[in-house]
Amino acid sequence: MRAYDTEIISVGTELLLGHVTNTDARDVSEMLSQIGINVRFHTVVGDNPGRLADCLRIARERADIIITTGGLGPTCDDLTKQVLCETFGVPLVQSSAEAEALYDYIRGGRQITLNNFAQALVPEGGTVFHNKWGTAPGCAFEKDGKIVVMVPGPPNECVPMFRECVVPYLRRLSDEQIVSHAVRIFGIGESAVDDIFAGEMNAMINPSMAPYAKECDCLLQITAKAASAEECEAMMAPVIAHVKERLGDYVYGMDVECIEEAVLPLLKERGMTFAAAESCTGGDIARRMTDIPGASAVFLGGAVTYTDGVKAGLLGIDADMIEEKGAVSFEVAKAMAERVRALTGADIGVGVTGLAGPDGDGVHPVGTVFVSMAVEGETFVRHVYMGPHRTRSFVRRMAGNFVFDMMRRWLTGLPVLPE
Amino acid sequence: MRAYDTEIISVGTELLLGHVTNTDARDVSEMLSQIGINVRFHTVVGDNPGRLADCLRIARERADIIITTGGLGPTCDDLTKQVLCETFGVPLVQSSAEAEALYDYIRGGRQITLNNFAQALVPEGGTVFHNKWGTAPGCAFEKDGKIVVMVPGPPNECVPMFRECVVPYLRRLSDEQIVSHAVRIFGIGESAVDDIFAGEMNAMINPSMAPYAKECDCLLQITAKAASAEECEAMMAPVIAHVKERLGDYVYGMDVECIEEAVLPLLKERGMTFAAAESCTGGDIARRMTDIPGASAVFLGGAVTYTDGVKAGLLGIDADMIEEKGAVSFEVAKAMAERVRALTGADIGVGVTGLAGPDGDGVHPVGTVFVSMAVEGETFVRHVYMGPHRTRSFVRRMAGNFVFDMMRRWLTGLPVLPE
Repeated sequence: MRAYDTEIISVGTELLLGHVTNTDARDVSEMLSQIGINVRFHTVVGDNPGRLADCLRIARERADIIITTGGLGPTCDDLTKQVLCETFGVPLVQSSAEAEALYDYIRGGRQITLNNFAQALVPEGGTVFHNKWGTAPGCAFEKDGKIVVMVPGPPNECVPMFRECVVPYLRRLSDEQIVSHAVRIFGIGESAVDDIFAGEMNAMINPSMAPYAKECDCLLQITAKAASAEECEAMMAPVIAHVKERLGDYVYGMDVECIEEAVLPLLKERGMTFAAAESCTGGDIARRMTDIPGASAVFLGGAVTYTDGVKAGLLGIDADMIEEKGAVSFEVAKAMAERVRALTGADIGVGVTGLAGPDGDGVHPVGTVFVSMAVEGETFVRHVYMGPHRTRSFVRRMAGNFVFDMMRRWLTGLPVLPE
Repeated sequence: MRAYDTEIISVGTELLLGHVTNTDARDVSEMLSQIGINVRFHTVVGDNPGRLADCLRIARERADIIITTGGLGPTCDDLTKQVLCETFGVPLVQSSAEAEALYDYIRGGRQITLNNFAQALVPEGGTVFHNKWGTAPGCAFEKDGKIVVMVPGPPNECVPMFRECVVPYLRRLSDEQIVSHAVRIFGIGESAVDDIFAGEMNAMINPSMAPYAKECDCLLQITAKAASAEECEAMMAPVIAHVKERLGDYVYGMDVECIEEAVLPLLKERGMTFAAAESCTGGDIARRMTDIPGASAVFLGGAVTYTDGVKAGLLGIDADMIEEKGAVSFEVAKAMAERVRALTGADIGVGVTGLAGPDGDGVHPVGTVFVSMAVEGETFVRHVYMGPHRTRSFVRRMAGNFVFDMMRRWLTGLPVLPE
């Protein structure tokens, strides 16, 4: 088959100033890789017609598909469409459907501005992607053997439009499938994983295997190319089995984004619920679980006990005990898990207390956490020190990972605490 | 002065597959713009020597400073240093200091692998940036009038190394300051802001002004270039005053990242505390506030009452009332704020109950939230409908923004509810 090398060009000075993160390029890349289209380059360029045109000339040399994100909106510095059409010699014409849609928008009582109407201009002979999530339409055209696609920049418009409109538009190009699985690992680092598999990985081409570090865990990405998805799966199955056997308990899931996504179905299958009492994580365990649609089947709620008074007042933990043992202690972590379990009626209560920094408590260093899990008849507490130079966000996220990992281990019958 | 055009090249196939977001390019860009160095392009390329070399040849044509992130680590697919030094004709030599540091690391009992030792190779005659946050050092060299800088890819190594080592290294190049302020706006959209200022913005060059949409609010970025920071400030002061006057109550802060960052100091100045009872936001209000170091001065904690049972059990809200009025109701929101205030002893209790989706409750559509705030002698409740097609993450974040905005308005003496 023909390989379509793709370049994503994101347009916006705000990206070059560091005011905004380029999540569009990530999300578009992920969707393209799922339909077997290779992304070779991401480029970011400012709202500058000359430099954008230069980037387009480079992309035209090295890519078959050029996808732009951004620069289609109503603000006066948006110019992607004009420069692309000029560079490729494609005239812009008014789309009556898009102009009509803008009028509908106004009739619907929505606020609109005069410069919104430049959005109704589209490349002649091209395809228009109506924007259900905002006002600026996306569009695509083919010229000189190249495919050019433009989508808006705001992620809540870019991502759904790409998924619903552009993916179907591009799918026809590929007669090859790429399937990829991510084996997610918690408890050992990327470097150790690499060390285990380095010899084999170098020799593997299809399927291929590569380790990646995430913020507080890591993964092995295994990828195959073949004529069908089934063939890809068959090629990868023995590799995945080998990896799982070699890494054992450290593997917490496959094709999940985070450990809480692995824990949710484990609870659901068993019809069990949990509640959380959080100190240093400050609600992040609850937030992470409830980020997942359907969390209400397994998560009841909990308490954010950021101060000693609230640990006593809301959870009813003995204030004298907190005073005596310290808020960051084995005993308080244990009580937090047990009390939140009792107060909510959950099957599992988890707790976390620790020091995320920047300030310590004079007893334990920043990076110390006690994580706990109370179940029927038993409470587990684990004392973790994450080492020096850990950021606040790292400690908070890692503490959550330890809590979710405790649940995973208990739910799957593994030893909950390290030997 | 000489203008140094800069290109940031991020190396890593994981970026092109969409497995990882390129936060390094954002963070490095932000730090560069603060020292008056213009970033013109970001490029992302995979772990492929040929394509990386091609990107370097393009960058050498269009940039004076080339900064690479990633590809310095111990895994076998890391190759940035080799390709850069080859492209620029600079030999790699062993750094005895870096080799020694690796031995120290091992003596300290840390895990290390043989391939870590390739990290001790550095460009001859260059500058080495020792990595206090990991093992792979960064480095820089000058050749043919170009400055080349390499830093590791993991954000918790890249960002502190860039701040502590690379910024001082580059600062000597610039005799011009760029200062930028972001006026943060909640309550009207980017498009409306653009409409208000479009005429003036087009005519403004230095200082310049541009609107940007964020996920659930927007901002006006005002930027000046001059010989000194004081001069920049003097140029921007009248523009900022004009913007604030024109936008009034909608301006919630300047140079903050989010509305909670504006609320924290308002509480602190008044010596007041708050607590939160969260349903649909599932801990996100607590998490957002406690993401900020020093939150414990103003935030006591709260309850995540994701289910009706926990609203009753943990907060003591009348179960019959929940049954009668519905969990998503004016009355329940009011009770949540009042109960969490009473139970924690906070000066302000806030509450939020609503429908983040994907499922509705058969009464209200997804995107409906009731946000509430209880203070001494008074409770405010606001019913918000965010419109159709709103994602779960949008509704959750926006609901939090409405809660923080209520607090901001009350704390600064503005009307709490819209007229």
